[in-house]
Amino acid sequence: MAETLTGTSIIAGKSVPGTAGTVTGVNPATGEQLQPEYSLLETDQLAEATAAARQAYESFSRLDPETHAAFLERIAEKIEDRADQLTPRVMAETGLPEARVTMERGRTVNQLRLFASVVRQGDHRGVRWDPAVPDRTPLPRPDVRQRRIPLGPVAVFGASNFPLAFSVAGGDTASALAAGCPVVFKAHNAHPGTSEIVGSAIAEAVAESGLHPGVFSLVYGPGTVIGQALVSDPAITAVGFTGSRSGGTALMAAAAAREVPIPVYAEMSSINPVFFFDGALSGDDDSVAELAGAYLTSVTGSSGQLCTQPGLVFVPTGEAGDRFVSAVGEAVAGIQGQTMLTASICQSWNSGVEKLADQAGVELVGRGSDGESRNAPAPAVFQTSAEQFRSNPVLHEEIFGAASLVIRYDSPEDLVQAAEQLEGQLTATLHVAESDYAAASPLVPVLEQKTGRILANGWPTGVEVNHAMVHGGPFPATSDSRTTSVGTLAIERFLRPVAYQNMPEQLLPAPVRSDNPWNLTRRIDGELQLDS
Amino acid sequence: MAETLTGTSIIAGKSVPGTAGTVTGVNPATGEQLQPEYSLLETDQLAEATAAARQAYESFSRLDPETHAAFLERIAEKIEDRADQLTPRVMAETGLPEARVTMERGRTVNQLRLFASVVRQGDHRGVRWDPAVPDRTPLPRPDVRQRRIPLGPVAVFGASNFPLAFSVAGGDTASALAAGCPVVFKAHNAHPGTSEIVGSAIAEAVAESGLHPGVFSLVYGPGTVIGQALVSDPAITAVGFTGSRSGGTALMAAAAAREVPIPVYAEMSSINPVFFFDGALSGDDDSVAELAGAYLTSVTGSSGQLCTQPGLVFVPTGEAGDRFVSAVGEAVAGIQGQTMLTASICQSWNSGVEKLADQAGVELVGRGSDGESRNAPAPAVFQTSAEQFRSNPVLHEEIFGAASLVIRYDSPEDLVQAAEQLEGQLTATLHVAESDYAAASPLVPVLEQKTGRILANGWPTGVEVNHAMVHGGPFPATSDSRTTSVGTLAIERFLRPVAYQNMPEQLLPAPVRSDNPWNLTRRIDGELQLDS
Repeated sequence: MAETLTGTSIIAGKSVPGTAGTVTGVNPATGEQLQPEYSLLETDQLAEATAAARQAYESFSRLDPETHAAFLERIAEKIEDRADQLTPRVMAETGLPEARVTMERGRTVNQLRLFASVVRQGDHRGVRWDPAVPDRTPLPRPDVRQRRIPLGPVAVFGASNFPLAFSVAGGDTASALAAGCPVVFKAHNAHPGTSEIVGSAIAEAVAESGLHPGVFSLVYGPGTVIGQALVSDPAITAVGFTGSRSGGTALMAAAAAREVPIPVYAEMSSINPVFFFDGALSGDDDSVAELAGAYLTSVTGSSGQLCTQPGLVFVPTGEAGDRFVSAVGEAVAGIQGQTMLTASICQSWNSGVEKLADQAGVELVGRGSDGESRNAPAPAVFQTSAEQFRSNPVLHEEIFGAASLVIRYDSPEDLVQAAEQLEGQLTATLHVAESDYAAASPLVPVLEQKTGRILANGWPTGVEVNHAMVHGGPFPATSDSRTTSVGTLAIERFLRPVAYQNMPEQLLPAPVRSDNPWNLTRRIDGELQLDS
Repeated sequence: MAETLTGTSIIAGKSVPGTAGTVTGVNPATGEQLQPEYSLLETDQLAEATAAARQAYESFSRLDPETHAAFLERIAEKIEDRADQLTPRVMAETGLPEARVTMERGRTVNQLRLFASVVRQGDHRGVRWDPAVPDRTPLPRPDVRQRRIPLGPVAVFGASNFPLAFSVAGGDTASALAAGCPVVFKAHNAHPGTSEIVGSAIAEAVAESGLHPGVFSLVYGPGTVIGQALVSDPAITAVGFTGSRSGGTALMAAAAAREVPIPVYAEMSSINPVFFFDGALSGDDDSVAELAGAYLTSVTGSSGQLCTQPGLVFVPTGEAGDRFVSAVGEAVAGIQGQTMLTASICQSWNSGVEKLADQAGVELVGRGSDGESRNAPAPAVFQTSAEQFRSNPVLHEEIFGAASLVIRYDSPEDLVQAAEQLEGQLTATLHVAESDYAAASPLVPVLEQKTGRILANGWPTGVEVNHAMVHGGPFPATSDSRTTSVGTLAIERFLRPVAYQNMPEQLLPAPVRSDNPWNLTRRIDGELQLDS
């Protein structure tokens, strides 16, 4: 267990100092610099990590399910062992409150344990078998078997807003390791100490599980430069990223420009529209106040720094909508700002809000108060009309933080039109009563085209980590709508199929051997046969 | 049924002439021009097809399984109805012999029927359900369901070498239509009449099935220009392509440069290495002659114009290898060239063979005789050493047609080294006796990294269309190793997941409704539950 932070990268289990300058964690609430300094790697120091990952692939990709699952569980234990060191460091580096950090640590270790259960169960291996038919005419039918293999070493870039659950041991790392892919993780420079504590937990789990040390490396480096170099490294076979649209599209371009292009799974930008129908607002004043309160909790929680924060809320014109907007205006006034993750994120939020406030036809619904610490701006809610929204692309831009825009519309057809105009989103939410179903029904297929997840009568923040979740969606929500970065389906991002034709049993890997030593579900002649 | 060919594009069921010049089919065996002329569309005429596809998506993507499957079967029937018109036209446009054309038509219609069975069965819909747990603490667990939806309109580019099975109603079209995606097919200018006959079969099936006519369009245009325009069209959501590496990478670049990037499934280039181990060549002279004959059948069948044609064969030095190479040299001398698909493909083959023959350390093993028709060059087999192969990248290039290179190696370690140096391949083949298993075993994981399919004791040509097949592999064999272009797994290329959270039953699409009206397999709380 890392009692003392070293301030270095961890390459294949070893502490490696860098020579490309340093970065220091900063407490966004106070401006205090947090020791130690972290030394940054030169890009040519990366090859040590990627080569070790390449070497580790040979054994790691063929690990038996039990050893593999136990390794993921051991990472979870090692993170829990470090809780007393981790919690204050995360709080200091991010300004997030203790309850949130504790919750996020729980989510992170649960996620690792969920993937351990997926590895034990084995359906992700996608075994198919069309047995031979020797007497088929005119030619015998060969024996063909299929399984999925891990792609190879994966480069992962974590998010600033989830320093645990979307960072060093977050969903991308967990799903890549579960798939059997070694991971080279680029530490986020906004939480270097948090990264080292979690990175040391993984490295310790690798060592104690008897795995090749190249299974995991944590590298610190100058953001853009090292990111491009890592994605361009020939040993890297896929990329996981959570962050800004500009960051994600830069990695997509680098991956496409390689001699051998590789997939990029970037989760980037979303404004998460919410659509209120009349019936949903027809309750008494208490129920409307409750809706307004739930909306603001979703807008302002974690200082609004959540990928699924509802940035756009469509509310009907007329009395019911007016009541809701008034309730929001009253309630937001009582909300104090919380510290944002970094001074620069706070600056971007301020400029975004100023720009929005300056747009024609946009008015303030209400504003809270500044927090007492630094970088804790007052939450803000604005309002505009459906016509303004249609004609002004600025109103479609994400403002990362505690701000939201209410759009007043006249008829359900306005909603279909507005939805068709939206870019790709992680989520879309309907607020409907039974009396609204007929009006809401035509919106559903439009939203399916625009989002990864559709919710009813709730709020999009608070993403469940389960088997059915999709945290994904069309560009620019993500770079690849065919998958998810949360939930067990995420493991499929890092796998590809290989077929074996008429191969002797002795040369077949375990998952496709006739005697099914790993008890896997198999699709035989097209029909699923569950494991015994 | 199209008694008379019109020489025009078919856009959403209507004949649409183009104004960008014409193209005419040519019989490669005789040079004869085949009537009618086909008029080519201007790129701005494409919007009609893509807009119709976009409109068709709304209903086609939600079709019930039975109507959907019956539509695919109706296409198969409509193609069979046209057999008498189709066979002579394919033969005239491609130089392929009747038996091959008949076989390929059978494969094409069987493929459509196989996808109909997949649509009826429904596992590709990927239904997952994590039911609500209202009393979970601290927060209730929501109900989350997942299904896959079709991506949207797909642009498909067919291959010249399979004018039926990889063309208008080929595997990409069949899998896209099976997924619920409308298709805009760019006709291959080398077989325009074949394309129209098959296109009219699909259009007729669309009309008789009562579907939106935009479900299918067939467009003729100036190759590169219209291809780029089609892939760049905002209504297109994915691309299927089979053809050259330069063609495929150009489409990949166009797709990546879009405002909203889209997936490209391009199957491009492969030399399909074959590895003979000592034991496999230790039989008597008859068995060695049989192996040599089977090799040459695979090299020269369809004039060698198959994606999985074995272009590289590793044979041990020493007596057993010498016997095999002699047998190949003798047998190839008796093989006559067959007409190639086009004069330009024949020219490329000639230059490729000349270039190979000129390389240092490359010697001729044997050569057949020219065919009697035009463009029917004599098959050729060359030989070189493992050292030469390692050091000369020219020897790694694909020569599309009836040529192959034997590489003589000294030890199994040479094979691992050579395999590690290879680019991505569709296939790799082992020839092994039981005595070779120990020596061959270390090669298997290396080949898994390089190919989509590994075979033993057979030849890679003749790809089965089934559930377990992978016709794919790492770049440049394909642009996306995570899938296959042959076999039922291909349907997954055109789907993406969407989650529904706490949605009222009345707003849920059929596949995720609680009462499971389509009897789908569902993954409930992570466990597969087979349909009733």
